[in-house]
Amino acid sequence: MIDVIATAQQALDVDMNGATAVVIDVLRATSSMTCAIHNGARSIVAVNTPEEAFDFKAKSSSRVILGGERHADKISGFDLDNSPLSYSADVVRGNDIVMTTTNGTLAIGACRRADRLLISSFLNADNVINQLQSVSGDIYIVCAGTEGRFTIEDGLCAGYIVSKLVGDKSDFAISMQQVYLSSSEDIRLVASKGEHFERLKRKGYAFDLDVCFSDIRNYEALECVDGVIKKL
Amino acid sequence: MIDVIATAQQALDVDMNGATAVVIDVLRATSSMTCAIHNGARSIVAVNTPEEAFDFKAKSSSRVILGGERHADKISGFDLDNSPLSYSADVVRGNDIVMTTTNGTLAIGACRRADRLLISSFLNADNVINQLQSVSGDIYIVCAGTEGRFTIEDGLCAGYIVSKLVGDKSDFAISMQQVYLSSSEDIRLVASKGEHFERLKRKGYAFDLDVCFSDIRNYEALECVDGVIKKL
Repeated sequence: MIDVIATAQQALDVDMNGATAVVIDVLRATSSMTCAIHNGARSIVAVNTPEEAFDFKAKSSSRVILGGERHADKISGFDLDNSPLSYSADVVRGNDIVMTTTNGTLAIGACRRADRLLISSFLNADNVINQLQSVSGDIYIVCAGTEGRFTIEDGLCAGYIVSKLVGDKSDFAISMQQVYLSSSEDIRLVASKGEHFERLKRKGYAFDLDVCFSDIRNYEALECVDGVIKKL
Repeated sequence: MIDVIATAQQALDVDMNGATAVVIDVLRATSSMTCAIHNGARSIVAVNTPEEAFDFKAKSSSRVILGGERHADKISGFDLDNSPLSYSADVVRGNDIVMTTTNGTLAIGACRRADRLLISSFLNADNVINQLQSVSGDIYIVCAGTEGRFTIEDGLCAGYIVSKLVGDKSDFAISMQQVYLSSSEDIRLVASKGEHFERLKRKGYAFDLDVCFSDIRNYEALECVDGVIKKL
């Protein structure tokens, strides 16, 4: 069964033993992770709190970059915010990154019991789909959402992935596929009706929206193993 | 804000104080309720268990018809199952009905704290929409779903209602509107991809599906006041 879960919070209630999970947080955590790894970062560790991030850095022998957000803005004492534009090659190449975001890292944590955990955004969706096409067990595509609420941009990306897969699909997966297929001419336009898109635009992150909804689909697929995210 | 809630279970977590709620269980509880009232039933009381239904009947001085289902079939000792075809005029006219169904009555119970509670199916959606167009506060359209899972037929009906309303819409409401609008040429075809539709078809309820997805939209809107459902 191919299922889509509407929020990180709902993912906590799903038994993912034996399943493959895919976490999506288009605006912006998984888009930024995709950019960071594409631009040469060695690994990303997702943690729940800024304190855990500072702890990790203090205990690490190599250089660690701290990235993430609270209320969409950079965390005090951190190196980078949650903008994909901040994870450029000159900043991240060869480095390990620790990230904490409001919804994306929560969704990743919720999927720890899955057999395999992939990280997707629109930017690397085609390579994530390639991986999923050979999966025979259950697939849970988890939309991070924002503060417990479903966000349409995650649903659109989930729908894009579902539309490329063959197999039994849940009613919610079919619905998200339908939302994507009927929006495929202009995904950004449909996403722009969403609350979270609007909030980021108001906060001045318009260029981030350009990146997250660009036509790129072939950045590297990411996998999270034992809490560490790397390219596949 | 116009919001859509994916399941009865999720509705339990929503604070509906001051809001208008609409409960939808297309297959089949709210479709059957709509048919019952349209065919002359005086009232419907929705209860959670068969025991409550028998109790209600035992304490009632007037004739009471018991209707509902467990696992989609008639409950032992009940008069009627959950098929809209069972609630014909010759059976229900002038009578009070007590119903218990797996998902629909749960959703109705979850919305008891709303200021106003309307009951919708496709069959009476246009009159429900008429009522909602003059609502100024929050509107929660609750899809009953089936056993805690979202079902596409409820989402399609919610999307139909959302598409006719003007106002701030949540990301999930916009998504359901998109699912409906892109399916409006053949709602039944899209609904037929759903698990619950398929299950009812397998169980031999094909005629029920014809009724629930007929082109009728103008049956009477229903309101639930103090647990009693009547025509508006």
